[in-house]
Amino acid sequence: MVFGAIAGLGVTALPGSDQVFVNLTLFVTLLCGCIVIGHLLEESRWINESITALVIGLSAAGITRLTTNRKSPHLLEFDEQLFFVYVIPAIIFNAGFQVKMKHFFRNLGTIVLFGVLGTLISFGVISFGAWLLLGKLGTGLELRDYLAIGAIFSATDSVCTLQVLDQDETPLLYSLVFGEGVVNDATSVVLFNAIQKFDLSNINSRVALSLTLTFLYRFVGSTLLGVVVGLLSAYIIKKIYLGRRKSTDREVALMILMAYLSYVMAELFDLNGILTVFVCGIVMSHYTWHNVTDNSKVTTRHAFATMSFIAETFIFLYVGMDALDIEKWRFASHSPGKSVAVSGVLLALVMVGRACFVIPLAILSNSWKQSKDHELGFKHQVTIWWAGLMRGAVSMALAYNQFTRFGHTQLPGNAVMITSTITIVLFSTVVFGLITKPLIRYLLPPSKDINMNSSELSLGLPLLNGLEHEGDVPRTSSLTMLLKRPAQTIIYFWSKFDDAFMRRVFGGRDSMPDTPVSSNEGSDHGSLFGSNPSLRLV
Amino acid sequence: MVFGAIAGLGVTALPGSDQVFVNLTLFVTLLCGCIVIGHLLEESRWINESITALVIGLSAAGITRLTTNRKSPHLLEFDEQLFFVYVIPAIIFNAGFQVKMKHFFRNLGTIVLFGVLGTLISFGVISFGAWLLLGKLGTGLELRDYLAIGAIFSATDSVCTLQVLDQDETPLLYSLVFGEGVVNDATSVVLFNAIQKFDLSNINSRVALSLTLTFLYRFVGSTLLGVVVGLLSAYIIKKIYLGRRKSTDREVALMILMAYLSYVMAELFDLNGILTVFVCGIVMSHYTWHNVTDNSKVTTRHAFATMSFIAETFIFLYVGMDALDIEKWRFASHSPGKSVAVSGVLLALVMVGRACFVIPLAILSNSWKQSKDHELGFKHQVTIWWAGLMRGAVSMALAYNQFTRFGHTQLPGNAVMITSTITIVLFSTVVFGLITKPLIRYLLPPSKDINMNSSELSLGLPLLNGLEHEGDVPRTSSLTMLLKRPAQTIIYFWSKFDDAFMRRVFGGRDSMPDTPVSSNEGSDHGSLFGSNPSLRLV
Repeated sequence: MVFGAIAGLGVTALPGSDQVFVNLTLFVTLLCGCIVIGHLLEESRWINESITALVIGLSAAGITRLTTNRKSPHLLEFDEQLFFVYVIPAIIFNAGFQVKMKHFFRNLGTIVLFGVLGTLISFGVISFGAWLLLGKLGTGLELRDYLAIGAIFSATDSVCTLQVLDQDETPLLYSLVFGEGVVNDATSVVLFNAIQKFDLSNINSRVALSLTLTFLYRFVGSTLLGVVVGLLSAYIIKKIYLGRRKSTDREVALMILMAYLSYVMAELFDLNGILTVFVCGIVMSHYTWHNVTDNSKVTTRHAFATMSFIAETFIFLYVGMDALDIEKWRFASHSPGKSVAVSGVLLALVMVGRACFVIPLAILSNSWKQSKDHELGFKHQVTIWWAGLMRGAVSMALAYNQFTRFGHTQLPGNAVMITSTITIVLFSTVVFGLITKPLIRYLLPPSKDINMNSSELSLGLPLLNGLEHEGDVPRTSSLTMLLKRPAQTIIYFWSKFDDAFMRRVFGGRDSMPDTPVSSNEGSDHGSLFGSNPSLRLV
Repeated sequence: MVFGAIAGLGVTALPGSDQVFVNLTLFVTLLCGCIVIGHLLEESRWINESITALVIGLSAAGITRLTTNRKSPHLLEFDEQLFFVYVIPAIIFNAGFQVKMKHFFRNLGTIVLFGVLGTLISFGVISFGAWLLLGKLGTGLELRDYLAIGAIFSATDSVCTLQVLDQDETPLLYSLVFGEGVVNDATSVVLFNAIQKFDLSNINSRVALSLTLTFLYRFVGSTLLGVVVGLLSAYIIKKIYLGRRKSTDREVALMILMAYLSYVMAELFDLNGILTVFVCGIVMSHYTWHNVTDNSKVTTRHAFATMSFIAETFIFLYVGMDALDIEKWRFASHSPGKSVAVSGVLLALVMVGRACFVIPLAILSNSWKQSKDHELGFKHQVTIWWAGLMRGAVSMALAYNQFTRFGHTQLPGNAVMITSTITIVLFSTVVFGLITKPLIRYLLPPSKDINMNSSELSLGLPLLNGLEHEGDVPRTSSLTMLLKRPAQTIIYFWSKFDDAFMRRVFGGRDSMPDTPVSSNEGSDHGSLFGSNPSLRLV
């Protein structure tokens, strides 16, 4: 799908066939450079691939600006459609497809708590703070703008998050932070859309109810659509292809197309495509993937990961190249003090806003636990807080949507918001990104992590409390059980239903004893893959 | 890369975010439908996947037109950039990557003879015939237009060709027809560009020499660029990744990106991207592919084939949907008689033009053979002739380039040329396509084909004459050998050089004894794959 993005790049950047090929050559060469250099820097203690791509993008834009005297002020124009239509779905689908379901579902409650309630708290804090502080700086923004700022800067960068934590070393923390990231993306986009559509000048209980209902409709609808399309793909591939084992290309093509279909359908029905395609990825990984040939299994795992890898690199390279666009900085250079002040205030709000929900919600989560050993300790809280501080493509895309018309703006206040967003994205990705690896290593030393990995279920992470043996038969009655240990009970009944019905109809790990199982399919295939999406597949 | 095409579709079709998602949903759903229905019809004696996609596209366009009352006259606009920038490279690269090199190189001489000289003959016949016959119909075309028509209708449809013949059943005929198709694509595009760029009003020896030199520069330059980029990818992957075996995503990403890079660089340097990316595919398959992990080997084979499969389906679906565009037919409906006459004349010229070179060149090729048994028989000649009669996306794209401005035309003569091109593409794909399978089965009965397959080298196909044992040491001196059996001698020395130098530097089948060879890699990995690109991989 990233070629779609490049397509957009070629088509939207500058007209003229030759210019398209100049841009494409430059961009594809830089992408190759990012991959090679990223690989060479892999062992580095500080650098990650996002930083590499950002720096290469910045350098390329700088060199182009110095060496050529282009008539057009734009080397590139930031195209938000490009991100939401082509690049983001590839990354999020792969994230769903590769997620370790076991850990994800065990932590579902906490993930939703952090992702939905947390994002709402962060949204409130940032909106209120921005209204309080930016108003004094005279940026000339309206109420709707402040609310939009809250939504824009509540969207964490799930891509960066993925590169910070390691799925093998800290599987539970990874699931929690990453799962929160996806729900957070969905929540902030839904919030942002709601703010744009509703008349906020006179908020009353009716508007508030309508907003809440829209919010719920989108969450439930998006999830359901992802499940339905995922199951449909499983059913079609199982019914049609089961007998004949020579249609790898068709199987892979159908999986890619149906995954993308779930995304575009969600957007068409005014649902949230990010959530839909994520759920679709999970369902496809759980059912569809087991219905295809061994070659298709290997191909889908790696092809989806490759698409996502290219898309991630593309985003950071693109953001880096876009950042040096002169027109954007014209207004900022008129009042540099104000720009710095706005960026500083927003960055502080991002950090405060996240602290405002991570610590209370962790304490809330801890209060449910019976044993002190199972509590979410301070170091874990700091890690969760830090891992969600980076801002990326989603924030950029939302900011462009709110503060520009087709990538251009003439209002000084809006121009300052765009440059501030770029500043925060660059600063958080590069500076926070550089500190992250050492920080995580300090907070969660590898020796402990390896221990964590080898005996993850007996470890003191509280989120697993009572879920160690989710397959066990409940010893008391179902109702008592449900009241006492709701999560475990739900998982127990779900897995019974899954084995008895779902897997028989839609295919799955145990439904097809005749199929030779490939050697790289363990009891939980997700566990074969590392945490870094670019390195997860061996 | 097909998502690039869909991107272009979304971006160029109609503005507005919602419309983009309507188009994408419709298109992706239809693509899924084509795959499923194409699979169900697989056993059919008549239908192939191109016809399925065309008919589905036509039906969808018809239903949309009847049920909705769209203000815009266009459901879609044909975007030639879309084909040349995103869709064609995916198909041609995969063709190069999956080609059976052994057969391809043995027939290289004949392939180039048919592809270059044959296309030039066909170009001459069609141009002259069009000037002679269409002039009388009063279409108001100029000399340049007639020459363009010659180039447009000399471009065979390699995609259809691939679906007609079976690489396993008739490997040599397949290599010949398919190889000719690729060289033909390149030749006709180069010709077309040359016609557009040169001042043809006063042709003298200088212009003719300049044309010839441009032609040669493009052929040699394109081939060299493909080789260089292919070898560079092999070298980078061998040098950087050899030690660490956990970078499947990076390997696959680098291969895809560098393949695409070869294409866009060729277009940037005014070379022929089709030829470049084809050669790059061959080189990558011969060197780069052997340097990557086993998982990458499986993934690249299948992922590239899937990309190509989606791109092929996309093209025919798109052409089908575009064909019903009303504006195009407005002029044609004013003078239906003339339209039918023009289409008929052009179709006849296509058939005559191809016969004019297939039969003479086959006789020329036969005259070189010493034994009567090795001659290219009449049935083979008819098969080669027939397999190259279909016209497809390349013809459409060239016609739009010549006869429209941004997909629109107001000149009646030009409008008739566009509708005639659509008519010929539809007619040849559907009607000729329907007859093809039975015809090939009649001309080359399966029993004979299986025999051909099992003992292909001893069969009476003349193109292999003297090449059965290309690895044998020449018994006489090199010079005598070169004069007597040039092809065999060149192959002999090339394979010595390949083993002694190329494979050591760039990697290859025998250079890495430490690497475990996956079970689906035979002595000639290409032989594992069938002829139909959508079914080639098991």
